[in-house]
Amino acid sequence: MTGEQMAEGTFAGETQRVIIEHVTPEVDNGRYAVKRLAGETVHVEADIFCDGHEELRAFILYKRAEETEWKHEPLTLQWNDHWYGDFTLEEPGSYVYKIEAWIDRFGTWLRDLQKRVEAGQDVAIELQVGSALMKQALRGLTGDDFERLNQRADALTRPDWPQLARVGIAFEVVSSELMALHGPRDPLTTYDVGQHITVDRAKAGFSAWYEVFPRSTAPAGQVGTFKTTMDWLPYISGMGFDVLYFPPIHPIGEINRKGANNAEKGEEWEPGSPWAIGSAEGGHTTVNPDLGTLDDFKALVAAAQQHGMEIALDIAYQCAPDHPWVKQHPEWFKHRPDGSIRYAENPPKLYQDIYPIDFETRDRAGLWKALEDVVRFWVEQGVRIFRVDNPHTKAFAFWQYMIANVKRDFPDVLFLAEAFTRPRTMEHLAKLGFSQSYTYFTWRNTKWELATYMDELTNTDIREYFRPNFWPNTPDILHESLQDGGRPAFVSRFMLAATLSSNYGIYGPAFELCVNQPRENGSEEYLNSEKYEVKHWDLDQSHSLRDYITLINKARRENTALQYTNNVRFLDPDGEHVLSYYKISPDGTNRILVMVNLDYSAGHSAAFWLPLEDMGLSRGEEFYVDDLLKGTTETWRGDRQMINLHPGDTQVRLLRLRTWQEANSGS
Amino acid sequence: MTGEQMAEGTFAGETQRVIIEHVTPEVDNGRYAVKRLAGETVHVEADIFCDGHEELRAFILYKRAEETEWKHEPLTLQWNDHWYGDFTLEEPGSYVYKIEAWIDRFGTWLRDLQKRVEAGQDVAIELQVGSALMKQALRGLTGDDFERLNQRADALTRPDWPQLARVGIAFEVVSSELMALHGPRDPLTTYDVGQHITVDRAKAGFSAWYEVFPRSTAPAGQVGTFKTTMDWLPYISGMGFDVLYFPPIHPIGEINRKGANNAEKGEEWEPGSPWAIGSAEGGHTTVNPDLGTLDDFKALVAAAQQHGMEIALDIAYQCAPDHPWVKQHPEWFKHRPDGSIRYAENPPKLYQDIYPIDFETRDRAGLWKALEDVVRFWVEQGVRIFRVDNPHTKAFAFWQYMIANVKRDFPDVLFLAEAFTRPRTMEHLAKLGFSQSYTYFTWRNTKWELATYMDELTNTDIREYFRPNFWPNTPDILHESLQDGGRPAFVSRFMLAATLSSNYGIYGPAFELCVNQPRENGSEEYLNSEKYEVKHWDLDQSHSLRDYITLINKARRENTALQYTNNVRFLDPDGEHVLSYYKISPDGTNRILVMVNLDYSAGHSAAFWLPLEDMGLSRGEEFYVDDLLKGTTETWRGDRQMINLHPGDTQVRLLRLRTWQEANSGS
Repeated sequence: MTGEQMAEGTFAGETQRVIIEHVTPEVDNGRYAVKRLAGETVHVEADIFCDGHEELRAFILYKRAEETEWKHEPLTLQWNDHWYGDFTLEEPGSYVYKIEAWIDRFGTWLRDLQKRVEAGQDVAIELQVGSALMKQALRGLTGDDFERLNQRADALTRPDWPQLARVGIAFEVVSSELMALHGPRDPLTTYDVGQHITVDRAKAGFSAWYEVFPRSTAPAGQVGTFKTTMDWLPYISGMGFDVLYFPPIHPIGEINRKGANNAEKGEEWEPGSPWAIGSAEGGHTTVNPDLGTLDDFKALVAAAQQHGMEIALDIAYQCAPDHPWVKQHPEWFKHRPDGSIRYAENPPKLYQDIYPIDFETRDRAGLWKALEDVVRFWVEQGVRIFRVDNPHTKAFAFWQYMIANVKRDFPDVLFLAEAFTRPRTMEHLAKLGFSQSYTYFTWRNTKWELATYMDELTNTDIREYFRPNFWPNTPDILHESLQDGGRPAFVSRFMLAATLSSNYGIYGPAFELCVNQPRENGSEEYLNSEKYEVKHWDLDQSHSLRDYITLINKARRENTALQYTNNVRFLDPDGEHVLSYYKISPDGTNRILVMVNLDYSAGHSAAFWLPLEDMGLSRGEEFYVDDLLKGTTETWRGDRQMINLHPGDTQVRLLRLRTWQEANSGS
Repeated sequence: MTGEQMAEGTFAGETQRVIIEHVTPEVDNGRYAVKRLAGETVHVEADIFCDGHEELRAFILYKRAEETEWKHEPLTLQWNDHWYGDFTLEEPGSYVYKIEAWIDRFGTWLRDLQKRVEAGQDVAIELQVGSALMKQALRGLTGDDFERLNQRADALTRPDWPQLARVGIAFEVVSSELMALHGPRDPLTTYDVGQHITVDRAKAGFSAWYEVFPRSTAPAGQVGTFKTTMDWLPYISGMGFDVLYFPPIHPIGEINRKGANNAEKGEEWEPGSPWAIGSAEGGHTTVNPDLGTLDDFKALVAAAQQHGMEIALDIAYQCAPDHPWVKQHPEWFKHRPDGSIRYAENPPKLYQDIYPIDFETRDRAGLWKALEDVVRFWVEQGVRIFRVDNPHTKAFAFWQYMIANVKRDFPDVLFLAEAFTRPRTMEHLAKLGFSQSYTYFTWRNTKWELATYMDELTNTDIREYFRPNFWPNTPDILHESLQDGGRPAFVSRFMLAATLSSNYGIYGPAFELCVNQPRENGSEEYLNSEKYEVKHWDLDQSHSLRDYITLINKARRENTALQYTNNVRFLDPDGEHVLSYYKISPDGTNRILVMVNLDYSAGHSAAFWLPLEDMGLSRGEEFYVDDLLKGTTETWRGDRQMINLHPGDTQVRLLRLRTWQEANSGS
């Protein structure tokens, strides 16, 4: 009954006796999809109850969105009308689920019969009631089940059988099973708000990204290309990254091209920003000839794959003034009364190397199709991961349309939303279909900030649809903690990103080489930002974090506990400087403990309590502690422990805790 | 877009740019009505945001359900896309509300214009943009507003005027006002889940109930009637009660009539239970002739009104075996295979003086109409409050239908749900329309139990639709705390009921006379329960709580703070024995502090902190503390206070806190 009908107070021909409410997982009453990974179990909970005192039955029904046949799993009553159940979705795709519950007339009768029998009452008439319920279930039934049920229905009322024998028939398991299958499901309540589940492949939930500018992969004096980038693959994959993300690889606009440090007018020879997309040479589906050919790119995709990495491309829906679309489709851009096209702007600032796209154009159908085709083009070239630039400045409805469309044909495609904006907008983009999202991690630095933010991400509704991807730096963001904290800050921030979140990324080699000079004081921009220049990197500097990063990525791969985000639990060591948390794998056997010094200039020791019981460890017994950075193993006993962290030496610790049995069974 | 459409990824002709979500107040996504009192302000909050960076406008629209014209109030942006606004509903009835929000093109243009002007940019072309926006708003406009807007649109682009003067026109308040009225509201998003608001008269939120058996209002040797009940009105209203509730007043069945202490077979002369409704003399619309005539009853209703009290009747939809409906409508009852009607039962227990009604009867329309007509009959006799017996054992859908139907014609009718069952069911009955609800209060006795329960009732969604009514006793429930605790327990439990909840009631005179003998040990039934016997009460016993109750009801009437439930805030005095809380009136000027000793056999002193700032009191200044039980006034200073409570003397305290100014301005 809708609210409108309710207020009318009209007589409802049917009476809904069973109520299903408080269903989880669910996003905004079913308006947006819940996200899960392939092979993951969906744990459903609901409050289910009815008027009166009858017994209920309840089932989860689920299917792929495009299929017609529903599968089902039972729901089980926990307590206080709260039910739970599970089902597993093996393949990426779009699924729906709903819940059905009904009054179990036979089960209710059986429950009451038992009480009557136990109280020594004559149940002759009650057995007639049960028999009638069985007879009712016979309608439309044939074959074996008909025979078996019919025999039992008759037996319940056989005057020549002793009552106790007839009661025995009622209590046979097979009677209940037959009635569960064939008994009436009336009145039936269906909870169906159209709840969708988007199932993604594993990488949506566990990934290590490395952002690199292909044009900066050549030795000094040269401009990098897809070919020179190929030479970097062993270096990057050697550190353990599995997603290699490139800023836009398209021709860069020549009109109003930016110069070094975002100078308004670049020199003729300057390369410009890759995000000023399009020139006479082509637009969003063209490869910048300076980087090579489309075939070079495809060769790079294949080579990366051999190194265990996927290429992620940047989708930045905006155009340089000389992008072909500006002439072909002027109606896709906003015009001013003087006939000029409106530049991108954040008044009073103007971005004269970019025209934003007008998503409210009258040719919305044509524009949206063209934008979707950009993604489809790169999907056809073998790309399956896209990092989307500033999605919050484009139409919400477009993302919902485009992502659903592409994923229906290619369920393995993933989209990362680069929206650094207000929380409701970031959440909404995730609801619209983005597989992963950039976060506020960069600006969460104190113990309180980090714990509070993780709590918001992992213990609220947000966890159902928003998969965080933690970046300690990007080409746009050099946080002051890195500027001021130097290498110890890089060490701590990397540990936090890579172990708090199962998805994380760095912008390299600036990160591992600890580049931390801002354009000016108070700025988060890099000095001589790579966004406007070709760089040449010396990867073999002694202060490089390469080995450290390699160890942590190895630990992530080898320890299931680190492959989840929502399993983080914080400890509370003394003082403000040490952040500590642990993660346990779903099966309970892999336990990782992380300690991070948030002070980048001084050491701290901190005492803390380990919740041994929660961790599956025994209070009285020794357990093994593997230091995954040092490669050593020690034994601890008891829940009160003490740890020393120091910027010069042990700024962070990454520990695995094992029981004696686990350590000695080769696991 | 529904979830189904979303998964389709179809191209949406319209793009929804503005998102409205997290709307409060709302019950189950608009499925059930929010409850408010007449004259109360409805405070609405919502998250409202759009893609891009434009300015928004948002309004609340509301109306009576049966009207067509919407009224509106603006929503105001607080921070982080969170908006709030208020509207007030003056009359009882059923209302709906929704939210509209749209992109404010003119406001956005004005915001950007200001930034451009401040940066010293030439805004000639921008003024053309603004002029065009105004011209757009002219469409369909006539008269004065057309003239004023047209003039301004022209002025913005007049080449002979200096730019600064034209900018001045843009910033005129009247320009914004005209554009707010007539500017395009495109794209518009409407949040309309059919959210209803049931507005009840004040008594739904603030009431003191007294339950009495009319048959027990006569002196010894006689059976009480409506006429003898009239003699009791000064006594009951003198204590300050304003709802006088009678158990069923209908003929009592003679077949299988219960005897004293629920004996299965009563003697011929025994009066039976009033809840075994119906005999040859009539059913639910007949007055038990032993109590008098319908005219007697109506005279009593009128007399009660003169004493400031309303009569509440009991609606118990069940029939004694000799109820006229059993013969007239056998199809309204469940039959067993032997043709007999099924008694009420809770297997293996049988209640042979009652037949339950079969809400699943094929003649649902006829039955529901007859049941509704019972209520309508008593409404026509002047009754406006009904206490509904065991509604959870009757069809959910019936209550929704009946209550909406009756309240549409009589918005001042109130229903109290007597459902002592599991939490989801009790909540659901309130969602279906019950104005007030019995609670678990009787079984919440420790400090932790009481504070936790109040938190659940007042700080969760439940507060939007569930109005608690606290009863320390009923004819069915004599809690062991009263059995064991004696008079001090009655004192404490009464204070708790009457000051924690703005709606409360007692079953008297058993309560004020501290009757506390159970039928047997471990039972919550009264010994010689009035349910099965005629009683004769000596109201003048010295241990009566009459004077104490009178004082508390007076305090409730005189202190607005006590006329609300959701404003309760707990203090945390030392120890387990003293419960303390305060309430502040909506306007902040009335402050009530309550201290209750939960130990009925020993005294306790407790130190506690007063949150002076929250209470609107100054740390440094003295404030006045009126003892509303003793009639004395003292002064306190500072937030650390100490209090002594003792069963023999000051078992509870009821204090009003006033500032010096308030105390000395005659308020």
